[in-house]
Amino acid sequence: MEQGDAEEQAHYASVLLSFREYEAFVMREIFRRKKHLQSLHVDMQRRLPQSSTMRNLHHFVNAAHHNQLFLERIVQAQLEHEHVELPQVNPKTPLQSPPRHLAKLKSTLHQFVRDWSEEGKKEREMCYAPILKELKRVLPVKPENQNMQRVLIPGAGLGRLALEIAAKGYAAQGNEFSYQMLFASNFILNWATQPGEFEIHPWIHNPSNALAITDLLRPVQIPDVSPTQLLGLDKGNRPDFSMCAGEFLEAYANDKECWDCIVTCFFIDTAPNVIEYIAAFERMLKPGGYWINLGPLLYHWQSGGGDDDERYAQSVELSYEEIKHVMGTYNFKILKESQRECEYTSNVKSMMKTVYNCAFFTAVKDVPAAQ
Amino acid sequence: MEQGDAEEQAHYASVLLSFREYEAFVMREIFRRKKHLQSLHVDMQRRLPQSSTMRNLHHFVNAAHHNQLFLERIVQAQLEHEHVELPQVNPKTPLQSPPRHLAKLKSTLHQFVRDWSEEGKKEREMCYAPILKELKRVLPVKPENQNMQRVLIPGAGLGRLALEIAAKGYAAQGNEFSYQMLFASNFILNWATQPGEFEIHPWIHNPSNALAITDLLRPVQIPDVSPTQLLGLDKGNRPDFSMCAGEFLEAYANDKECWDCIVTCFFIDTAPNVIEYIAAFERMLKPGGYWINLGPLLYHWQSGGGDDDERYAQSVELSYEEIKHVMGTYNFKILKESQRECEYTSNVKSMMKTVYNCAFFTAVKDVPAAQ
Repeated sequence: MEQGDAEEQAHYASVLLSFREYEAFVMREIFRRKKHLQSLHVDMQRRLPQSSTMRNLHHFVNAAHHNQLFLERIVQAQLEHEHVELPQVNPKTPLQSPPRHLAKLKSTLHQFVRDWSEEGKKEREMCYAPILKELKRVLPVKPENQNMQRVLIPGAGLGRLALEIAAKGYAAQGNEFSYQMLFASNFILNWATQPGEFEIHPWIHNPSNALAITDLLRPVQIPDVSPTQLLGLDKGNRPDFSMCAGEFLEAYANDKECWDCIVTCFFIDTAPNVIEYIAAFERMLKPGGYWINLGPLLYHWQSGGGDDDERYAQSVELSYEEIKHVMGTYNFKILKESQRECEYTSNVKSMMKTVYNCAFFTAVKDVPAAQ
Repeated sequence: MEQGDAEEQAHYASVLLSFREYEAFVMREIFRRKKHLQSLHVDMQRRLPQSSTMRNLHHFVNAAHHNQLFLERIVQAQLEHEHVELPQVNPKTPLQSPPRHLAKLKSTLHQFVRDWSEEGKKEREMCYAPILKELKRVLPVKPENQNMQRVLIPGAGLGRLALEIAAKGYAAQGNEFSYQMLFASNFILNWATQPGEFEIHPWIHNPSNALAITDLLRPVQIPDVSPTQLLGLDKGNRPDFSMCAGEFLEAYANDKECWDCIVTCFFIDTAPNVIEYIAAFERMLKPGGYWINLGPLLYHWQSGGGDDDERYAQSVELSYEEIKHVMGTYNFKILKESQRECEYTSNVKSMMKTVYNCAFFTAVKDVPAAQ
């Protein structure tokens, strides 16, 4: 085994272990709430309603445990692929995972809501629906090109958009780098057989901005539709869908003019250097191929996230105007352009949400006529 | 001088010094951007437009310097009140201020936009306009009660809402704890004589989510209206307006049944224990007095902010439902209640914004008939 492989294996095991440590992690926060509530003056405690957090913290404990059972299913699905020795943990075991891994588990649960719940439908309508419509417009599916137009979706997350694209009759490939997302998408894509099969409690982590405690505790059923159904496998449809694990630039380093369309949704700002992504898109697309983008420019590597990843030392944060100029130097011609308000893993019941004014554009790789 | 006073003085001087260190602080970020852009491959650098950050970083340097000149005016205004020995600093001096003080200076510039610019008007219409309307409804101003109805505005920030209330004919008092806000409000309230007198560049701090670099660099003129004009002093109006510095619970510890109305706007979630605020409001209001509230429940002391303030160890995060129940136990009766979408120091040109689904209510202190 090479050194790179050994490091990769260690990272794989470390992320997988963090899935198992979720409950122990969340219990620390629930214990904090309990301690603070119990140190309230008794006169104040008496003023709280029967339904208060004070009297209902055990529901949070139960919900965290419920989430852990779900995450353990994801761990089990991974262990079927690849044998890894993982320690057993319980809520009292000292945490071994770095805080950033544990924090990502909360986001992973939120991603399930975005991609695979009825509650996430509104968000998907904002982001995925206009992309699907635009894809249909520039590359219509006809009987003679069914499953032949190759569409790549980098940053595929839990795979919903990629799957929707495959279901429409494209040869769709999702690419994803994060093990959290890969483990979770592997599970939902390959193990979910019917709508509402699993129940999670994704909103227990943050007690702020709650109208009611029941809003924090409310369960979310996933998936809203089984991947099998969505792809029409049960009706004899034979879609072309795949997921590719790996860092985008590395995974597609050798691809040249082989994609009909690249769809980026909340993706390009994950680049330390977005120009490298643009260059890669240009290389990978066939002449006349399309790049459809929707997303903000919330550059992920802008400021140090408490770890020493070297990408923090490279981050450049281009404005949208600069990106469009750079696109021009790579022969991209913007055909259509607008701004769209979208949300990303919003809690619909929270008193606070983030709204992105996304850049939504379609560009064509416009190869100059005379070479 | 007592120990408490000495500590307070040291804190005062430390916050004041941070105003002077703003430019040096921001220059570190601008230098980071420069270093990262310069390490781009030369082919990529060539693809950037003439207008790019790459070629325009000196505009950010100038803007930071411009902001520093403005903040130095604020420092000078404070030094007229109270003599403090402050070291001179320049952009190359090592920073003495704690990061949290420096971070608050960015927010202070944003607060100027919210409270004292034309650009902030939309935000004020969302938050202040409904409050002013409701205040007028419950406590109409008539010739016979002109400047006699006492309204307290805790968490007054840069004083705009309190001033608007005074201008309408109430005896208005703003209360504010943060020295950043107090220094800034002292300056704008007492030193600004005409609209557009000062120019700041509040949006240079964050390069993400920019449509164009000019959006980041754009100047904002303040104030939109001079406080003198707003209060009608130039027209012979004699309003009753004051600001009270200090922590809310301490500053009003001895007030009993002396306020006609307490207006809280984005305030109650600054309490480590919101029940203490509710108890204080009940004690301070006259029987039949009103509490008008608008805000989310983004509890400020929920998680450690990197400092060891003991309030982090007390924070309780009640849901809105719990708060209403507690209000009932303090004889508050909610007369009117709704939810309103509001923003807070939003950058109108950014591709990302936070939207709060605020609880907006009017409650009356409903003292039981038979004692």
